[in-house]
Amino acid sequence: MTTSTTMDTGKSYHKQATGAAFDTVQRHATDQDITLFAGCFCPFVQRVWVALEYLGIPYKVYEVDPYKKPQELLELSPKGLVPALRLDNYSPPRALNESTVILEYLEDLASMSTKRSLLPPLSDPYARALVRLQSDHVNRTLVPAFYRYLQAQDPDAQIAGGREFLDAIETLVGLFERAEREVGGTGLWKEGGELGLADVLVGPWLLRATNVLKHYRGLELPRGPKFDGWLNRLLEHPAFKRTCSTEELYLDSYERYAFNRPNTSQVANAINTGRGLP
Amino acid sequence: MTTSTTMDTGKSYHKQATGAAFDTVQRHATDQDITLFAGCFCPFVQRVWVALEYLGIPYKVYEVDPYKKPQELLELSPKGLVPALRLDNYSPPRALNESTVILEYLEDLASMSTKRSLLPPLSDPYARALVRLQSDHVNRTLVPAFYRYLQAQDPDAQIAGGREFLDAIETLVGLFERAEREVGGTGLWKEGGELGLADVLVGPWLLRATNVLKHYRGLELPRGPKFDGWLNRLLEHPAFKRTCSTEELYLDSYERYAFNRPNTSQVANAINTGRGLP
Repeated sequence: MTTSTTMDTGKSYHKQATGAAFDTVQRHATDQDITLFAGCFCPFVQRVWVALEYLGIPYKVYEVDPYKKPQELLELSPKGLVPALRLDNYSPPRALNESTVILEYLEDLASMSTKRSLLPPLSDPYARALVRLQSDHVNRTLVPAFYRYLQAQDPDAQIAGGREFLDAIETLVGLFERAEREVGGTGLWKEGGELGLADVLVGPWLLRATNVLKHYRGLELPRGPKFDGWLNRLLEHPAFKRTCSTEELYLDSYERYAFNRPNTSQVANAINTGRGLP
Repeated sequence: MTTSTTMDTGKSYHKQATGAAFDTVQRHATDQDITLFAGCFCPFVQRVWVALEYLGIPYKVYEVDPYKKPQELLELSPKGLVPALRLDNYSPPRALNESTVILEYLEDLASMSTKRSLLPPLSDPYARALVRLQSDHVNRTLVPAFYRYLQAQDPDAQIAGGREFLDAIETLVGLFERAEREVGGTGLWKEGGELGLADVLVGPWLLRATNVLKHYRGLELPRGPKFDGWLNRLLEHPAFKRTCSTEELYLDSYERYAFNRPNTSQVANAINTGRGLP
C-alpha cells in the first residue's frame, strides 16, 4: 500500500450523474408515488437506488446539490441529508430518511408487491440473521473505516487507516464464509446467488475503493478467485451498474474528502471529531 | 442537573441477578433449544431477555461473569461479548450475537410460532419504518450518549453529557409524537399499545437513567403526563420487570463506569477513544 502523493487541485463535486447513472435518471423523471432525493456521488443514496432498481419498485429521481439543499429536501429531512424518500401516496406527503431504514421499508413494500427480496425467506430466520450480522458489520465498522482512511492526512494515519479498512473487508469475508458453511451461502457471495442486503449495503463503498481509494491512497483490494468473483458479480450486477457514474465523477467529488477540506460534509465532521455517523 | 460529588468506593460489579430477575433466572434453568448467555447488569443482554419474555419463546439463561468469560462463551462470540445465543437445535450448535441482530431473529422466529410481534404488521410498512427510525436513533445516538455522560469526569464534560443525553431523549419523544400524528402511535407510547421494538431497545438505558445516572450524575428525567405515562408503562411492563434486578445491583455494578476506571469494558474503551460501540 502506498500513501497519498497527489496534490489538492481544488476540484469540486459533481451535481449531476454521468454515464449509466445519467441514463437511469432520465428514465425515472416522471412522477411516481415514491421520489428519491439523490446526490450523484453519495454512497448512502446509491444503496437506496440499487434497491429500488433491484426490487422493481416504481420511483422518480430528484437530483439535489447536497451543499445547497433545496427547500423541498429540508422539508423532508430534518438534517437535510440524502437519501430521503417523499411518499406522495399520502396527503400531506410523508417522508423517510436514513438509508438502512429506507432499505427495510423497500424490502417490506416489495414483499407485498414484486415478491423480490434482499433477505433469505422468513422460513429461514437463522440465514436472515447471518445477513443481518454482515450488514451490522458493514454499517458499524466498514463504512466508518472507509472515511477515516480517506480523510487521514499524515502517512502513519493513512497506513493505519488502510489496515483498518482492509481488516474490515477481511471480517466481512469471514462472515460470508461462515454463511457459506452454515446455510450454503448468502447474497452474491454464493455463486449463482442473487443480490442480498449486505451486498447492497457495502457495494457503494467497494466501488469507491476501486476508484477513489485506489487513486488517492494507492489502495489495492484483496485478490483471490472467491473475492474477485464476488466483487465482479456485485459491481457488474445490472441493478448496481445502472446506478454508477463514470470514474471521473467519483474522483472529482471525493477530492475534498481526500484532503480533508473544512466543511466537507456531516459525515466527514463526525469522523474528524470521533463521533458516530449522522 | 447537578454534577457528580460521590466518591469511588471501589464497589465491584455483581455476577448474579437479584430480585425479580433472580426469580426469572431460576424459572429458566432447564435446557432449551435457545440458551441466552447473560450478564446480570448488561443492558444489551436485557434487551434480548425482555424480547424472549415478551415473545413467549422458550429459553434457558446462563449467567456469566463478563470479566471472566467462560470458554463456552468464547466459543460462541468472537469478541466474547454478551448477549450471545447458543442454538442447540443444530448440530454442531450455532451461535448469534449483537443484540439488534438477535432481536430481529427472535421477531422472525415469533412470526412463525407465537405470533407476537415487536413491530407493526407487514401490511403497514410505513409504520414499521417509523419504529425503525426510532430504533436507529436509540442505537446510534441515545446509547452512546448515555456512556459519554456516565464516563465524563470533569464537571463541564458532565454538564455537556447530560445535555446530550436529554437531547437524545427529546429527539426520541419527537419521533414517538410523529408516529402518533402519522399512524396513531407505536409501541407503548400509544395508550393501550403494546411493547414495541424501540421500547425494548431503549428500556434498559432508561431504567439505568432512573438509578445509575440519577445517583452518580444527579440526572432528572423529563417530566410531563405523556412522558411519565410512557416511562411507567415501559418500566412496569411485566416482560420488562421480570428482567430487572434490585437497584443496589445497578448502582454497584456501574460505579466503575461512573469513575471511568481503566479496563471497565469494551464499550467504555470505545467511548473513551471516540470509536463506535463494539
